[in-house]
Amino acid sequence: MERTLIKNLGEKIGGQVLIKGWVSVRRDQGKMVFFDFRDRSGTVQGVVLPKSPAIETAKEVKLEYVVAVEGNVNQRPEKNRNPKVQNGDIELEVTGLTVLAKAETLPFDMSLDGYNVDLPTELDHRALTLRHPKIQAVFKVQAVIIDSFREYLKSQDFFEFQAPAIVPATAEGGAEVFKVDYFDKTAYLSQSPQLYKQIVMTAFERVFSVNKIFRAEPSMTTRHLTEVVSLDAEMSFIDSWREVRDMSEATVRYILAQVGEKCAAELELLGATLPTMLSETPTLTLNEAFEKLGVSRGKDLNPEQERTLCQMIKEETGSDFVYVYGYPTRDRPFYVYPSKENPEFNEGMDLLCRGVEWLSGGRRINDFEQLMDHVEKWQMDPKKIEMFLEAFRYGAPPEGGFAFGAERMTMQILGLKNIREATIFPRDMTRIDSRLSEAGETEND
Amino acid sequence: MERTLIKNLGEKIGGQVLIKGWVSVRRDQGKMVFFDFRDRSGTVQGVVLPKSPAIETAKEVKLEYVVAVEGNVNQRPEKNRNPKVQNGDIELEVTGLTVLAKAETLPFDMSLDGYNVDLPTELDHRALTLRHPKIQAVFKVQAVIIDSFREYLKSQDFFEFQAPAIVPATAEGGAEVFKVDYFDKTAYLSQSPQLYKQIVMTAFERVFSVNKIFRAEPSMTTRHLTEVVSLDAEMSFIDSWREVRDMSEATVRYILAQVGEKCAAELELLGATLPTMLSETPTLTLNEAFEKLGVSRGKDLNPEQERTLCQMIKEETGSDFVYVYGYPTRDRPFYVYPSKENPEFNEGMDLLCRGVEWLSGGRRINDFEQLMDHVEKWQMDPKKIEMFLEAFRYGAPPEGGFAFGAERMTMQILGLKNIREATIFPRDMTRIDSRLSEAGETEND
Repeated sequence: MERTLIKNLGEKIGGQVLIKGWVSVRRDQGKMVFFDFRDRSGTVQGVVLPKSPAIETAKEVKLEYVVAVEGNVNQRPEKNRNPKVQNGDIELEVTGLTVLAKAETLPFDMSLDGYNVDLPTELDHRALTLRHPKIQAVFKVQAVIIDSFREYLKSQDFFEFQAPAIVPATAEGGAEVFKVDYFDKTAYLSQSPQLYKQIVMTAFERVFSVNKIFRAEPSMTTRHLTEVVSLDAEMSFIDSWREVRDMSEATVRYILAQVGEKCAAELELLGATLPTMLSETPTLTLNEAFEKLGVSRGKDLNPEQERTLCQMIKEETGSDFVYVYGYPTRDRPFYVYPSKENPEFNEGMDLLCRGVEWLSGGRRINDFEQLMDHVEKWQMDPKKIEMFLEAFRYGAPPEGGFAFGAERMTMQILGLKNIREATIFPRDMTRIDSRLSEAGETEND
Repeated sequence: MERTLIKNLGEKIGGQVLIKGWVSVRRDQGKMVFFDFRDRSGTVQGVVLPKSPAIETAKEVKLEYVVAVEGNVNQRPEKNRNPKVQNGDIELEVTGLTVLAKAETLPFDMSLDGYNVDLPTELDHRALTLRHPKIQAVFKVQAVIIDSFREYLKSQDFFEFQAPAIVPATAEGGAEVFKVDYFDKTAYLSQSPQLYKQIVMTAFERVFSVNKIFRAEPSMTTRHLTEVVSLDAEMSFIDSWREVRDMSEATVRYILAQVGEKCAAELELLGATLPTMLSETPTLTLNEAFEKLGVSRGKDLNPEQERTLCQMIKEETGSDFVYVYGYPTRDRPFYVYPSKENPEFNEGMDLLCRGVEWLSGGRRINDFEQLMDHVEKWQMDPKKIEMFLEAFRYGAPPEGGFAFGAERMTMQILGLKNIREATIFPRDMTRIDSRLSEAGETEND
């Protein structure tokens, strides 16, 4: 018999089916044994009656055994139906049960409602805890976020390229970069595909990449990982930074719509609600933001100010999102475009939502002379960014771009407390899969 | 006026348009100036007539200048039409020309037919050479290969996950792994997401990843890079390794079909023809292959034998592809599934095409006891693969998977001579963007 996915059992009421999956729940009631079976598409309740040929195997089967189950799909009596859960109106009357793989006794309760372990333990047992529906829901949402990013930009004629992980020098960053023993030389792990996406933009005009970036910050907050997925876009032939803002806004809007559409069940399971994005997101200069907050000007908003600003905007407009642009030119990287009207401030921007930054971007300098002027003023070593400079030496159009981290956006869409919950295999100072030392983890923000 | 993409000019014959792009060709004929303009969608010929308001600017504009061009789209006289090139039936009569960015004099001829630099020079100037249509064609094909891999597997209900780059230990590999200074510890760069995809498979059943892998082989052949894009898939609830073969065959078939459909122009430009895949690809055991070749048995086919086998299969069946399976169990990794009928040989497989390996895969051991038995026999340290083993300790279904490198498949579909041509930013022993030493590159196979 061909395998039926559990999500499709409702179409087979009254029929005989074969399902394959794991034992999520087992309740031995003496004569009968009740099960919840789980496959990649969902769960269903099964019952092995006393006279079933499967009853002996049912007595041996334990939690997380992998099984092939033959049975009849029966409609439950009216009073036993539960419209709130998947397959709550049916029950599988098991007629055959084959063990495909055994499982040892679980180290803790993995049931839907009984699961209750702290984060370090969850990560110590990632290979097992990844089976929990609530944890799977997080990564299904993340896959949709990443996929929607690609989908939207492809629809806008962006070209996907592969940015490198191993880089020759630390063009942008300070000390917070990982060193790699590269034969008899030293190489580094990329902190950002920024300069690479600008290079590729000068050939393909509109480009994006989904690539790993690496941060060696010795930081153990709830928001830091050493390896993250960076979603990067760069576009050219713009007239103003506002086109970059609009593209980033449309991208986030598309992602939210896709998550809402494709992950309704996951959002419900996790108790998450999507943030509200208006048809036009409120947009302020940094100085306008300081004025609104009634505080003196500075280089950037601090976390407290970000939270307050988001609250004020939400109350005034209903928008969960707000763009802030126009940062002090000298406090941002050398490639950010200074405003023509007031070159002290640049055309860099951040998108805030629910009190934190979601995305950064802005217009970049495309004129080679202006770029070289900034290289000098910022005291960059031109030799270390030779390939980048070549792209602009030979004619680069007006351009800009934006970037955000997949894990951070997952965390913030779902309201998770720790970014490690938004990463299947999180890496930080104290953990790469297992803990790096016996000291254990300390987590504070 | 709104910008028109160059590929759409044919729809605007007789109309006024604005295009934006780069100057690819410039021929100053004294009174008139002819141009080829290039944007992300293609090229078009333009002419600036003596009385055009643009004539003065046209005299100043040089190759690779970025320009905005206003003009009339004229049909060319019958005798001047060239049906073989894009927009060969039209010409843009330039009425306005604005320089958006200047370019310095090019270091070599970048024209479509005049381009002729050796590979090291091409890579030294990647930021510039990436603008050449033939080089862009390679990466457009590569983007379609990677995208089609994703698309097909998603259509088959596979879940995309992000495999890590930083790993704690060298579970599989020998010495050919890159070390990372990880705070006060040592970490490594992943050589393969193999064990991670198997872990994630035990939760999501069918999974794939598109991630970087790193190889520290001190090798400078035409087929080696230190950083490549690995396309990995893993599927469970199989009855036999043949389901893995079938899925990999269907994936390659889909990729080839998509490349054929979406990249017809690129294939023509590069003079590449797609390999022939029959409705069922010839499939031999390793020993049958040795017999066919009339040579004595060994652990694997050598490169010469791979070439001969592919030729023989091509002549006999017309297929460019051939699967070889059933390798000596003890010569392959510990997780490969030994045949039940003859455990000396395993259910690992390779797909060869046009004389070289395209893809590897096979069935894996899912039974925990059998896996632990192999761990012992292969003298693996179970502590180094603790998380992997946990996935199988708690019930893992029968499973298998396959993997291939995006650069290698790009190289082989397009018949490129060196894998560096199939990588925008190739990394090898002697190069990360620029050359690592003054010694230069030696390339031999």
